[in-house]
Parts: sequence; C-alpha cells; structure tokens
Amino acid sequence: MEKEHNLVPEDKLWKRFLYRIIYRSDTKLGQLFDIILLSLILLSTFIIMMESVPKLDKRFHLTFVVLEWIISLFFTVEYMMRIAVVRNKKNYIFSFFGVIDFLALVPFYLSFFFPVTKYFLIFRMLRMLRIFRIFNLLDFMNDGYLIVRALKNSSRKIYIFLLFLIIFSVIVGSLMFMVEGGRPGFETIPQSIYWAVVTVTTVGYGDVSPITPMGKFFAVILMLAGYSIIAVPTGIVTAEMRNKRQNLEKICEQCGNEDIDDDARYCKQCGKKLA
Amino acid sequence: MEKEHNLVPEDKLWKRFLYRIIYRSDTKLGQLFDIILLSLILLSTFIIMMESVPKLDKRFHLTFVVLEWIISLFFTVEYMMRIAVVRNKKNYIFSFFGVIDFLALVPFYLSFFFPVTKYFLIFRMLRMLRIFRIFNLLDFMNDGYLIVRALKNSSRKIYIFLLFLIIFSVIVGSLMFMVEGGRPGFETIPQSIYWAVVTVTTVGYGDVSPITPMGKFFAVILMLAGYSIIAVPTGIVTAEMRNKRQNLEKICEQCGNEDIDDDARYCKQCGKKLA
Amino acid sequence: MEKEHNLVPEDKLWKRFLYRIIYRSDTKLGQLFDIILLSLILLSTFIIMMESVPKLDKRFHLTFVVLEWIISLFFTVEYMMRIAVVRNKKNYIFSFFGVIDFLALVPFYLSFFFPVTKYFLIFRMLRMLRIFRIFNLLDFMNDGYLIVRALKNSSRKIYIFLLFLIIFSVIVGSLMFMVEGGRPGFETIPQSIYWAVVTVTTVGYGDVSPITPMGKFFAVILMLAGYSIIAVPTGIVTAEMRNKRQNLEKICEQCGNEDIDDDARYCKQCGKKLA
Amino acid sequence: MEKEHNLVPEDKLWKRFLYRIIYRSDTKLGQLFDIILLSLILLSTFIIMMESVPKLDKRFHLTFVVLEWIISLFFTVEYMMRIAVVRNKKNYIFSFFGVIDFLALVPFYLSFFFPVTKYFLIFRMLRMLRIFRIFNLLDFMNDGYLIVRALKNSSRKIYIFLLFLIIFSVIVGSLMFMVEGGRPGFETIPQSIYWAVVTVTTVGYGDVSPITPMGKFFAVILMLAGYSIIAVPTGIVTAEMRNKRQNLEKICEQCGNEDIDDDARYCKQCGKKLA
Repeated sequence: MEKEHNLVPEDKLWKRFLYRIIYRSDTKLGQLFDIILLSLILLSTFIIMMESVPKLDKRFHLTFVVLEWIISLFFTVEYMMRIAVVRNKKNYIFSFFGVIDFLALVPFYLSFFFPVTKYFLIFRMLRMLRIFRIFNLLDFMNDGYLIVRALKNSSRKIYIFLLFLIIFSVIVGSLMFMVEGGRPGFETIPQSIYWAVVTVTTVGYGDVSPITPMGKFFAVILMLAGYSIIAVPTGIVTAEMRNKRQNLEKICEQCGNEDIDDDARYCKQCGKKLA
Repeated sequence: MEKEHNLVPEDKLWKRFLYRIIYRSDTKLGQLFDIILLSLILLSTFIIMMESVPKLDKRFHLTFVVLEWIISLFFTVEYMMRIAVVRNKKNYIFSFFGVIDFLALVPFYLSFFFPVTKYFLIFRMLRMLRIFRIFNLLDFMNDGYLIVRALKNSSRKIYIFLLFLIIFSVIVGSLMFMVEGGRPGFETIPQSIYWAVVTVTTVGYGDVSPITPMGKFFAVILMLAGYSIIAVPTGIVTAEMRNKRQNLEKICEQCGNEDIDDDARYCKQCGKKLA
Repeated sequence: MEKEHNLVPEDKLWKRFLYRIIYRSDTKLGQLFDIILLSLILLSTFIIMMESVPKLDKRFHLTFVVLEWIISLFFTVEYMMRIAVVRNKKNYIFSFFGVIDFLALVPFYLSFFFPVTKYFLIFRMLRMLRIFRIFNLLDFMNDGYLIVRALKNSSRKIYIFLLFLIIFSVIVGSLMFMVEGGRPGFETIPQSIYWAVVTVTTVGYGDVSPITPMGKFFAVILMLAGYSIIAVPTGIVTAEMRNKRQNLEKICEQCGNEDIDDDARYCKQCGKKLA
Repeated sequence: MEKEHNLVPEDKLWKRFLYRIIYRSDTKLGQLFDIILLSLILLSTFIIMMESVPKLDKRFHLTFVVLEWIISLFFTVEYMMRIAVVRNKKNYIFSFFGVIDFLALVPFYLSFFFPVTKYFLIFRMLRMLRIFRIFNLLDFMNDGYLIVRALKNSSRKIYIFLLFLIIFSVIVGSLMFMVEGGRPGFETIPQSIYWAVVTVTTVGYGDVSPITPMGKFFAVILMLAGYSIIAVPTGIVTAEMRNKRQNLEKICEQCGNEDIDDDARYCKQCGKKLA
C-alpha cells in the first residue's frame, strides 16, 4: 500500500530522520511514535463515544473538548509532516491510508460550522487498520490480504446474490403486504419489505412479526427459504478461500502441477524439487 | 435464454431496425432504449411502493395513477413490438423473460376488475434481471449462471433437507404444544409449529417464546440442534459450488469433457493426456 | 433398510400377492396402496393439528374422532398384515420403519387411558420418510442416504462441539448471572444459561436481553464469539460432505488413486481405464 | 497433555497404586474413581445452579451447603493427592488440567471472604473435558484435537476478521446514532454500537430496533451486509478443517512429514515416492 512512497528521500537530513520515525517502525523512536499514534486514535474514539452519553458529557464536557482539540491538532501536524517528508506526495495523498488520514481530520474542522458532523470523527478508527504494519505482524498482514483478496474475488458473485436477494425481498414484502395488509408493521409496502429482510437474514428483531394464521404460514415458508439461501454466500466465499489458500502463484516446472501447498518442497505429482 | 429467437429477421427493414433496438444493445439507440426501460421498471416499482403509503398516496394520488398509466402503456406497446419483430414468436412468448414481460402487464389490466391485484405489479422487478445482458456484463452473467447452476444441482438435496426439516418442525412443535400447551403462543399445534420454525431457523422474533422452565429446557435443546443442522444446507451448496468452480476453463480436446479437476493430468472420460 | 425381509415368501399365494401390494410399488395395485397410505398419513397429521385448535375442534369434533378411528384401524390392519406376509418377521419389526409403524399406532390405543398421549400421533409423520421409496425416486433416496451418512460420519465431531458449546454456555450464563444478577430474565443461573444459548445460537428471541451497560458489553463479546463459533459445525459437515461426494469406494488399480469422481471412466492420475 | 507426568513413579508402592487409580483408567478401581469424579462434578454444577434459584435455595439451603462442603473437600484431597503421587509435580500443576483442577477449588475457599465468588465454582464444569480420556474414547479425543487444531490454525484469520468486524460495528453504530439519535435504544453511541453488533451477528433481540424510515433503510443495508459477511469465518474454518482432515493417517517414511494430501504420490517435503 505504501510501497511507492516508501523510498527514503535523499534530500535533507531532517526529512530522512522524520521519514523513518513516521513511516517506519524499525527504530526505537519510530516505534514510540507509532504507539503514541495508536493510543491517541483509541483515546479519540473513546472520547467521541463518551461525549454522546449525556450524563458523562455534562460532567466532563471541558475535558473532552480540550482533549479533542489536542488530538486533532496532533493529527493535523502529523498529516502535514507525512506530506512534507514523503517524496511522492501525490501517491501518499491518494493512497488508501492517505485518504483515511485526511478524512480523520475533516470532521473536526467541519464541526465548527455543522456541529453534527463531529460524530464522523469516529472514522478515525479506520486508521487502526495500520496496527499490523506498526507491530511488524507480517503473518497477520498476509492473512488480512488473503481475506480481502478472497472477498474481492468473490465480490462479483456476492453482488449478484445481493441483487437476487433484494428483488426477492421486495416481492415477498409486497405479497406479505397483501396478506397482512394494514396490520401493525405491515401498513405499507416499504414496511413489509423491511420485515422481509429482517426475516430472510434471520435477524428477526420481532418488532414486526406476522399476526394472522395466513401470514404466519407465509412467514414459515420464507424462513425455510432463507435458511436454505444463507448457504449461498458461504459457499461462494468458502470456495474462493479454499482456492486462494493453496495455489499462490506456485507451479511445478516439470509437470505444470499448480496445486502446491505453501510448505511443499517437492512437487507431489512428479517428485521434482521445487525452486 | 433468448438464443432461439435471436436471429435477425430477414423480412422487412423496419422489423430488423426495431429488432436491433429492442433485443440488442450494440447500437446507440439500442442502449438508450434499454436504459429507458430499466428506468421505467425502477420508477414503476417505486410508485407501487409509494402508493401503499397512505400519506403519500393522498398527496400524489393523481400523479401516481397517471405515471402508472403511461408506464403500463409503454410496456404494453413494447411487449407487442417484441412479439411483432421477433421471428420465432412462440419461443419468445414462452421463454423465461417472455413470461415475465407478460406477467408485468397482467396485474395492471386486472386491477380494473380486482383493485387488490394492483400490487402484483411489483413482479415487474423481475424484469430487472435483464440488467446484466443490457450492460453486456458477461462476467456477471456467467457468475449468475454459475450460482443458479450450483443451486439447481443441489436442489434435490435441498428438497430432501427441507422435508426432513418440516417433519422435524412438526414433531418438535407438537411436543412443545404438550409441554407449554395453552400458554400464549402455544395455544394450538400449528402455532407451536410456527414457533419451532422460527427457532430452528434462528430467526427468533420473540413474539412467541417458551415460558415454563420445562419449555425453556426443551427450547435450548432445539436451538442447539438447529445450530448444528444449519451446517447441512451450507455444506451441500458449498460442496456443489466448489465442484462447479474448478472445471470452468479446462476442456478435453479429444472428447470435449468439461469436468476437469485442477490437478488432473489425464481426461477421466477418455484417458487422453491433457495439455 | 428393508433388504433382509424383501424376499418374496414362497408359502401361500395370497401372502405373495399381499406382499407385492404392501411392500413393493411395481404393480398398479401396489402403487394405489402406497398413495392411499400417504394420503392417510397426511390426513391423520392434519386432523391432529386441527383438533388442537379449540374453535375447529368444537365444530368438527365428531368428524375428527370418526376419521381418527378409521385411519387408526386401517393402520392397525396394515401393520398386522405387514407382519403376516413378511418372511423374516423379526427383521421387519425391529427395522427402522417397523418401529415407526408400531409407534404410529401406540398413542391411539394409549389415549383411551391417558388422553394427552393423543398428540404423540404426530409421530405418524415419520412414516412419510417412505415417500422416496414409494415413488421409486432412486436419486432422491441416494441423496438422502448421502446426507444421513455425512451427518453420521461427522456426528462424533458434532457431539464434541455440542459438549464444548454446553460447557461454554453454562459458564457464560453463570458469569452473566453475576453481572446482571436479579434483573428480569437473569434471576437464576438456569435462566441466564437459557439466555446464553439463545444468544450464542443467534436465535435472539429478545424475551431476555441485557439491561446494564456492563451486561451489554458482555453480551457483545458473547455475540462476536458466537458469530465465529457458528463456523465450526458448518466446517465439519462441509468437509465431510465434500469428502463423501467424490470417492465412493472407487480406486484406481494401477496407481491407487482414490480421488475418482462418480462419472470418471479413466483415472485422472495415470490415465488407466477404470473397471 | 499429561504425557510428561504420565510415567509410573518408581518410589513407593502406595504412590504407584494411587497413581494408577487417579491418573489411569485401566483398572476397575481407576474406572470407579473416574466415574465418582465425573458424578461429583456434575452434582456440584447442578447444586450451584439450583442454589441460584431462590425458591429451591430456601427449601434445601442446608443440603446444598453440606453437599458443597463434602464435594469441595473431596476435590481438595484429590488435588493434593494428584500432586503427591505424580513425579514431575511442576508439569502437572501448570498443565492445562492442573490449572483447571486448581481453579475448581479456589472459589470455594474465597467465598468465605467474598460470598459472590461462590458462583465461579461453575468453572468446575471445565473438569468435564476429561470425560473422553476417562472413558478411553480415543476417537473422540482425536476428533476433539482436530477441531481445536483447526481453530488454532485459523485463529489468526479470525482475530483479523473480528478486528474488521469491531471497527465496522463502531462506525455503523455511530452513523446510526446520527440517524436515529436520541430515540429509545439509540440514546448514545455505545448503545448504538450494541445495536449494530446485535444486528450484524443476526442475533436480533429486538430490544433495540430502528424506528424511523431512514433508520430502517439503513438497518436493511446493514443486515444484507451482515448476511454476506457471515460467510467469512465459515469460509476460514471450513478451508482449514478440510485441510486438516485429509492428511491424518498418511505419513512419509523418509522424513516423517505428516501433511500429505489424498492425491499426493510423492512426499512434498523430501520427494520420496509414497507407498
């Protein structure tokens, strides 16, 4: 993700020094910086949550505001320094983490004009995704990429599945509206669609549930259908995950076998030693 | 699906012209037509939903009725033209999309006699399944067929599973009727079966839940059973999906066998060494 | 299942004749008998359900009682004939379906002494499992056996999983009792265990739900754990099902390859023609 | 688990005798001891549960207290004997079961000072995990290890998944707080996060559910997302389980590699042709 702008800038010494601290974690100072960063992200998230609790906000309002100011200023300075010390500035600014770093600041300054936007600061939590890089947890990062890649590869199938599911829910909801029509929770078609989604995903709040025997019979059929349908996304992702796990780019030169496990040293088809 | 009647009719020029616009999307006009069609489907669905909301219906009743008339007339003309310009008329009329196109019209005309049928217009949403063909999203179509095929191939196992599940729910419901008998939600056996299905599918509305300690004990056992049973449909579809996934690109040159595993070196149908 | 006693008895003609009608469905009369049987099972189940609805029972009480008598007498005669015409009587009586046929009768006669046992008649539904044999649905029967076998083979793992789950629920329930202790729904440890099971299986009736912030925090952790745990039974059954699907006893004589698909005619490892 | 200290001590006869009874179950006395132990664990768990029910506690308080004393003393003596007769005392004390045996005693003695800790005695249930060893259920033990191993191997991926899920829930909860803000159940951000977790895990108590149309629309999107996300942990564990399942009986004679796929003909570690 940060490969492109990972190059050590050759220009000035202070830039190189800061670069190492901010972008790397192979020095004592760099690690300290990362840990402070993580703590501030967590603290910031915690404060936003607590501010929303009237009882706590009344008591600690000033503390919360002051801490928010300090953290936001720290993040602002950090963001500017990140841009300053990196060589390929554009690459950083438009990278995944670059955008998140920016979004983590905007709500603070916006909240002077639109107070409600303050709560968008919660997006700061996304910065935590850096956690694996920070602690050099390479295995965790690899596994994380694996999951993301499996999801990406099956995303097309999942979109199709969701389209089916939405059409299905709209139709079922409308039918139920005709069956239970007017009864509490089924007053309108959108309401009934809401019920259909709550049911088919097996969430089942119970704020809306069928009342007439006919409606209950109908709901039973929907539930049994939903119970069978739930297998589809699981099947998609499982097949993809299993697939990704085995053949990460490896191939036997002698027989072309592509089914090579991560820890294999010899091809299990022809016995050829693997490179 | 529309292969059979896909042939360009050789008769008249205007027929050929309209055919291209309506059935294909390889011309500017054809694409425009498709986009207008999709928008009208969405608009129609939206209007039906909004009509069911008393507050909105009161305010915009006339607008809704007029729009519905316009869209339905457009769909009627389109349906007749689809029949007119296609060669093999029977094939279109009884094809999957031909039937849906017809069903999307019927409720409108029926609603003059039986007003309640108006809401069946929601089935128009099914026309949206054409969306992938319209935007030439071949990959999406292939993935869609894959899902449908996997479901079709495992449908027999899923029917058996559902039969088991229904028998199971009926028996459990009856037992629970004896345990909780008469208490709210368990007044009759059908009611108790409704509860059993709600529980075993893990929907759990909570409109009916066990009250006596004995009933709760019984429910706990049912839930644990349901939790284990949920694995069955998933297992079925996953195994099928994994199976279908593998052998999509490979094919045997000698006998045309398409069912070739990733690690196969010889065709299992004719024994030919695979490339 | 009924293999052992499937042999045509050589003794008397009427026995042989009845045997064919009752146990087989390769004659017109045999098929008629089977269809009548199925209809009576369905009718019987339906009557028991309807009898539990006070409104219907009041109106049709006599009809229900008479029909129940007729059906039960028919089943009794049928059961005695099944024993009479079969050669290996013991084998039938203690076979899976023999026991079910017997259990389908007992509650009727017991209900003269203990009226409540009447509802156990619902177990008659289990006789419906014969449906696949009756209609000669061989593919369905095979798929059914496959599912049953996959469940049997993974039953040991599922028992272990359930033991884990029960211990887990008991401990979580007890901890929650200490956290929420005394609040409605958490008055006793068994009550709290009931809540834990409802939560971890994702049923979530909502008749009991955490009230204090501490309890909610605790519940969130439990739900996230349950969400991860749900993968285990699915994984077990899926692995088993996938396994069962491919290698049903087949093996290549030349290379010993056991991974042979149902439709393979040549070994995909060495190209040897399969027997 | 108890391999290290499994060695028969050579010192004194009474030690060797007791060792066989306590640690092994290959003698009549040893089996009797194990069954008594299991019964007392179950009885103890049962008593703790029943004590929490005010009605039962009032009636049987003395019985419960006396039984608890007897069982706890028995467990104390047993724990001390376990240490006395084993050779490598440290190994036992810090082994998995050694720690559990200790934890099963502590709450009893602590409860003299802090009565509430009494309920921690429920942890005694964990001692039941010994059940498979006791009855020499080797197959069960192997399957148990298999599940534990599959979970351990996929634990890293599951942690990552949980981190994603937590960040996701916090963000969704905060957004919902802005949408439904102030309405019952969404008074604060932590409350809204609680709702988000209840929804995304498909538990759906219904103690909190969206009220405004906007909130319901938002909830529908979250549910559909959750329905797709649920596939991820299942996919992870299934892939891992399938993997572990295959290579259990096979082993390479040359290098002892145990990770051998069903269709492998050569060891992938040393290239040796497999038998």
